[in-house]
Amino acid sequence: MAGNKAVTYVGPGKVEVDTIEYPGFVLKDGPGVNPANVGRETSHGVILKNVATNICGSDQHMVRGRTTAPQGLVLGHEITGEVIETGRDVEFIKVGDLVSVPFNIACGRCRNCKEGKTGICLNVNPDRPGSAYGYVDMGGWVGGQAEYVMVPYADWNLLKFPDRDQAMEKILDLTMLSDIFPTGFHGCVTAGVTVGSTVYVAGAGPVGLAAAASAQLLGAAAVIVGDLNAERLAQARSFGCETVDVSKGDPKDQIAEILGEPEVDCGVDAVGFEARGHGRESATEHPATVLNSLMDLTRAGGALGIPGLYVTGDPGAGDEAARHGSLSIRIGLGWAKSHAFTTGQCPVMKYHRRLMMAILHDRVQIAKAVNATPIALTEAPRGYHEFDQGAARKYVLDPHGLLN
Amino acid sequence: MAGNKAVTYVGPGKVEVDTIEYPGFVLKDGPGVNPANVGRETSHGVILKNVATNICGSDQHMVRGRTTAPQGLVLGHEITGEVIETGRDVEFIKVGDLVSVPFNIACGRCRNCKEGKTGICLNVNPDRPGSAYGYVDMGGWVGGQAEYVMVPYADWNLLKFPDRDQAMEKILDLTMLSDIFPTGFHGCVTAGVTVGSTVYVAGAGPVGLAAAASAQLLGAAAVIVGDLNAERLAQARSFGCETVDVSKGDPKDQIAEILGEPEVDCGVDAVGFEARGHGRESATEHPATVLNSLMDLTRAGGALGIPGLYVTGDPGAGDEAARHGSLSIRIGLGWAKSHAFTTGQCPVMKYHRRLMMAILHDRVQIAKAVNATPIALTEAPRGYHEFDQGAARKYVLDPHGLLN
Amino acid sequence: MAGNKAVTYVGPGKVEVDTIEYPGFVLKDGPGVNPANVGRETSHGVILKNVATNICGSDQHMVRGRTTAPQGLVLGHEITGEVIETGRDVEFIKVGDLVSVPFNIACGRCRNCKEGKTGICLNVNPDRPGSAYGYVDMGGWVGGQAEYVMVPYADWNLLKFPDRDQAMEKILDLTMLSDIFPTGFHGCVTAGVTVGSTVYVAGAGPVGLAAAASAQLLGAAAVIVGDLNAERLAQARSFGCETVDVSKGDPKDQIAEILGEPEVDCGVDAVGFEARGHGRESATEHPATVLNSLMDLTRAGGALGIPGLYVTGDPGAGDEAARHGSLSIRIGLGWAKSHAFTTGQCPVMKYHRRLMMAILHDRVQIAKAVNATPIALTEAPRGYHEFDQGAARKYVLDPHGLLN
Amino acid sequence: MAGNKAVTYVGPGKVEVDTIEYPGFVLKDGPGVNPANVGRETSHGVILKNVATNICGSDQHMVRGRTTAPQGLVLGHEITGEVIETGRDVEFIKVGDLVSVPFNIACGRCRNCKEGKTGICLNVNPDRPGSAYGYVDMGGWVGGQAEYVMVPYADWNLLKFPDRDQAMEKILDLTMLSDIFPTGFHGCVTAGVTVGSTVYVAGAGPVGLAAAASAQLLGAAAVIVGDLNAERLAQARSFGCETVDVSKGDPKDQIAEILGEPEVDCGVDAVGFEARGHGRESATEHPATVLNSLMDLTRAGGALGIPGLYVTGDPGAGDEAARHGSLSIRIGLGWAKSHAFTTGQCPVMKYHRRLMMAILHDRVQIAKAVNATPIALTEAPRGYHEFDQGAARKYVLDPHGLLN
Repeated sequence: MAGNKAVTYVGPGKVEVDTIEYPGFVLKDGPGVNPANVGRETSHGVILKNVATNICGSDQHMVRGRTTAPQGLVLGHEITGEVIETGRDVEFIKVGDLVSVPFNIACGRCRNCKEGKTGICLNVNPDRPGSAYGYVDMGGWVGGQAEYVMVPYADWNLLKFPDRDQAMEKILDLTMLSDIFPTGFHGCVTAGVTVGSTVYVAGAGPVGLAAAASAQLLGAAAVIVGDLNAERLAQARSFGCETVDVSKGDPKDQIAEILGEPEVDCGVDAVGFEARGHGRESATEHPATVLNSLMDLTRAGGALGIPGLYVTGDPGAGDEAARHGSLSIRIGLGWAKSHAFTTGQCPVMKYHRRLMMAILHDRVQIAKAVNATPIALTEAPRGYHEFDQGAARKYVLDPHGLLN
Repeated sequence: MAGNKAVTYVGPGKVEVDTIEYPGFVLKDGPGVNPANVGRETSHGVILKNVATNICGSDQHMVRGRTTAPQGLVLGHEITGEVIETGRDVEFIKVGDLVSVPFNIACGRCRNCKEGKTGICLNVNPDRPGSAYGYVDMGGWVGGQAEYVMVPYADWNLLKFPDRDQAMEKILDLTMLSDIFPTGFHGCVTAGVTVGSTVYVAGAGPVGLAAAASAQLLGAAAVIVGDLNAERLAQARSFGCETVDVSKGDPKDQIAEILGEPEVDCGVDAVGFEARGHGRESATEHPATVLNSLMDLTRAGGALGIPGLYVTGDPGAGDEAARHGSLSIRIGLGWAKSHAFTTGQCPVMKYHRRLMMAILHDRVQIAKAVNATPIALTEAPRGYHEFDQGAARKYVLDPHGLLN
Repeated sequence: MAGNKAVTYVGPGKVEVDTIEYPGFVLKDGPGVNPANVGRETSHGVILKNVATNICGSDQHMVRGRTTAPQGLVLGHEITGEVIETGRDVEFIKVGDLVSVPFNIACGRCRNCKEGKTGICLNVNPDRPGSAYGYVDMGGWVGGQAEYVMVPYADWNLLKFPDRDQAMEKILDLTMLSDIFPTGFHGCVTAGVTVGSTVYVAGAGPVGLAAAASAQLLGAAAVIVGDLNAERLAQARSFGCETVDVSKGDPKDQIAEILGEPEVDCGVDAVGFEARGHGRESATEHPATVLNSLMDLTRAGGALGIPGLYVTGDPGAGDEAARHGSLSIRIGLGWAKSHAFTTGQCPVMKYHRRLMMAILHDRVQIAKAVNATPIALTEAPRGYHEFDQGAARKYVLDPHGLLN
Repeated sequence: MAGNKAVTYVGPGKVEVDTIEYPGFVLKDGPGVNPANVGRETSHGVILKNVATNICGSDQHMVRGRTTAPQGLVLGHEITGEVIETGRDVEFIKVGDLVSVPFNIACGRCRNCKEGKTGICLNVNPDRPGSAYGYVDMGGWVGGQAEYVMVPYADWNLLKFPDRDQAMEKILDLTMLSDIFPTGFHGCVTAGVTVGSTVYVAGAGPVGLAAAASAQLLGAAAVIVGDLNAERLAQARSFGCETVDVSKGDPKDQIAEILGEPEVDCGVDAVGFEARGHGRESATEHPATVLNSLMDLTRAGGALGIPGLYVTGDPGAGDEAARHGSLSIRIGLGWAKSHAFTTGQCPVMKYHRRLMMAILHDRVQIAKAVNATPIALTEAPRGYHEFDQGAARKYVLDPHGLLN
């Protein structure tokens, strides 16, 4: 078997395409691999030939140097592919199946998995509950921005598309099932979005746009998206959202203009800890801006869904507290309004089958909503760069030239 | 009609028993009454002869001078009484009924009430959603630590006890239905407490003890209560709880000794913004201590119920941010553990009928759990003082000498 | 004040337009009025000038003579109107408000109302929980297929449209909020319809079509409607549903052709006890056909929502058991598939505000889906007749010529 | 390895203890084994040395000859044991672990398992969703009333007790986790039992008693159990339940005497299709008696949990419809009361960990409630006989003499 081209992290602001080892059914040592995972057998896994593998905003946290990601880390946790080899213990997934891989690696055997909480599986990351492919401090599972990747616990983790040809026709939509579509959807569900809701989504990056499309799919009456980036706001308007330019001031005022009242039923934080301020403060990072703003603009009795990432340690933070993951939050305001808050990784498995059905039956155009843009695997460095510059695109790497 | 003896706030650290006006079916001007409520007719209300009316920990925030409560404010929002007069529009509640009054005043006609969110009724407080009797910034409804009180929207708000004699036998239990029993129960429900859960309740004041008793009633496997106050911890042990003395250090370590693991399924904050630190920091206020500690000691996938009060403004706070209700919260830790947080006033109506049934059928001894201690109305100043000193008692005022 | 033209039941197969008394705030004796309700004061009520009032399939049960409805009963429980007079105790609803009336009359003060179960209010019908306007054995509240009607407990029951002009532009959609849109929606919600579901709706009458539109609004992947009536099936196809002609045989087979598998996730019974058989049995009534068929074609683990009416007594039934409301149901099949079943009147208040929002923000075209067809009040007899003949229309009476 | 003593079905009314083959990791042909399962490899399984294995009421349906169970079928689906051998693919369960086996066999890889619906797993029974050990038409998994048994998908299915010695002290309680405790609990949960509920459990056999104990654990205010069998009713009273002797007439009247009203909040059917009538009809089978009675005595808005078994075919039924699983059900009554019904096998995994915690922390005495009675494996025929005669005991087989 030949090698395996893959995207690796080189240092702050820099990724490159290297040839790494072809995957097998044993975890080997390498950059970022937890020693406790070295030598772990995965006869429950499969090898995928990757058909589509996306660049994610959370990859950017590492590439911007905001984490302790080691040099050589193979990136990528948004993976869709064809099964080309199955481990000894795989029973239901077959060679030739076209599948979506949830970004959260889960064993399907622990208490949390049994409760559907696959984002915090207890058996895949020696450091803490929860894991993902190609991510710092997540146990060291090799990333999927590559030609080939090994997926463990395949019978549990994988979502098989029912028909291969049908799936290839909608592959740019289906590739969003590995992360951002369920993640945006989870943000909406935990924010209480339902038929008739008014919704504000903070952030018009891919997760924010996916949340907005999810809110529409859930029957929301009005979906408002806020961001600083004009191109991304235009993208949100392209599929029927209202928008708010937070560089122009407090989103609450702009919401009042749109809805006739300054509050929404549901708030979704699709930004996370690298938030910038609003209005005149929008040039600099204010990591609690989004959370505090959402409490202000969400009605009493409403809820906040928080798919945006908040971290336990942020070496690049502006103050000591934030370096340890503590932010100055207006909890008194949230309390007065009886708000509920839901945080954490989206448990993709909870949603991906249903969202696949919605895609296959033409109920949602998620690829269009997030402006899915396929590029060659070798162009990944350009994709990372443009995405970091704020391009209103979701870059989909095409390792084998199978897209379009 | 004669006068009406009542407990009023005089100034920081001081309450007294005054004679105020006998209640009627129109809101009159007075200390703390919102101008927009002056003259409001309440023909939907009833006059109660108060049988039991408790001193609450949240009254203490005002009496300690931590709020802008005006001199002369009539205190008291935990009320149980007999209906002695009904307004013209009252249809189902009758003179002679013995009733429990939810501390949250609700109209029973707005969107929030219709959704069961009576803690944030839209029609009773001109300042913001939600109200309570005898409380600062809550619209100015006269408090119930008095001989008589007017309760508006009586058909909606009141819980009638099915049998008067049976009720009088358990009146010290039933008086907890107006606030702390549902409030503690709500803390548990929103923390996800269910059969078999392990639960940590921060705070062994009356709400904490009520939360602990609620956790037991909900079938929790293990209930651990933490506090600095040895007498209150002993009270928690008296009905089968495990305890943690937070003055001795991080509760996580003590939990590990009790359970064999350092985490619980569910965390309840029954302390709020006047929290002190743990271990060596326990001599001083550290308002985010409880929240941050709960994130540390609650398992990934667990939830935090937060009945403890956090305020939008705290003139007595130790730093500028806290004076505006902002605390330094380790949100990154909560996010990594996929925690959910539920804040706000307990919507008493959601629970009080069920908890009454549990009391009347001897399924719970809530008065014993919180050490209900009846005293005469005229002794209220002593009750306030002793409670403030940390007495492990729940003081129940007895305005008419009806409590043995 | 002049009289009040209204539609009354004359005898099997016959309705007429009579002049009845103008409504007031006291219930008077009359056809079908429960003696215990005679003289009841309703100072909590309002008088409406009816803008739109629809003929409902459940009215047909009475008009077909399948009930004990008395001669002279004033029909109509789907009411939208303008408030022209308010009772003494009405506080928040004002003269001039344009409002939707839930068909289920509810007091807003009993245990069931407080739990959101307004379909089984304990205080409005002396015979049993639950009531409706203009309906047999429902306490005797005068029906609303009239120029004017009295609505009790107005602050609780009524949904005010936020803007009068905006509402009049969508009045044919908004008039569906009084019954069939929430009823169909409730059928879907209780059948577990959610994003990505496959759904089968039995019955393409107005409730079935409303259920189908609701399933789409809830994000269902595929919505299949079954009926015997070709015109109604064409109506279902007009807004994107798949259809099954049950006169041609078992719907399961036709579902298999559409979906590639013979089962759906969710089954909705929008037919009820006057069901006819499938295939060769479709010429005659087989009252359990729909329930038994839904168990057969709903997947294991699925649920059945049953908004279709089943009655406790049916004088016109084909066998003795059915005359007392007992049907031969394949409960063993449902049990083997772990089905859940939800029956009963839709509690309209649970849904109407949200569905109003969806209408006002153009997220659903319910009037078009059910083919809303306004006719003059005086044409009601024709409307009843054509609807009984199976017209694929929802007749909306226009008592004051306000509908285009 | 020597043989394996096991209980087998010989014919109506007769079981015996035979020596069968020692289990391995391949399904072999045998009585009741589905051809499609012959040769199936189960390297994901473990071999258990059975510590306790109970006789279940649902075994009695087979032994009474009410099914098509073949001669030689090895019985038993309530299994607790020690792992003595693990298949090649078992990763987390270890030799020496003491474990509880859910009666429903589940793969942990299909859509239903991922949704927590392990009672209707799609991959273990070629005939239909759902399976169990030692049961007719369930695929042919060898029963566990034996010295040894093979449990497939062990990492997924098994619940490990945290401490072996602690577990052996409560083994008679813990053995109820394999079926009846979760089954009774599920009946209560789906009937809506919660703190303060009034509950009626039809049937005082082991599942009924387990449901009653579950209702108490869930905080029910009043638990009433109905049966014809005086000894079983006495058993129910022994742990604080109220009782109703249905041979004396309609349970509704007796409920009225106990509660002061003729209805309860929640109804649980722990009887199923072999129900006898009430009052004078109690000498003969009336298979819909329990369902119809529960609709009568459960309040409007209440729910029915139906863990009692209803079958798709009953060769011994009294009429043709019942032979095909159709019963005459008063659905009109249920509909008028807005009842919800939940049927089907309990998905044990949803509850067993939590119930184990409740047992280990002394929150429930389930063995005492159901009168757990250990007997030797060789005494199984006597156990079956006495149980069939109505003994108020739950027989626990002790294949290795490890129980006291």
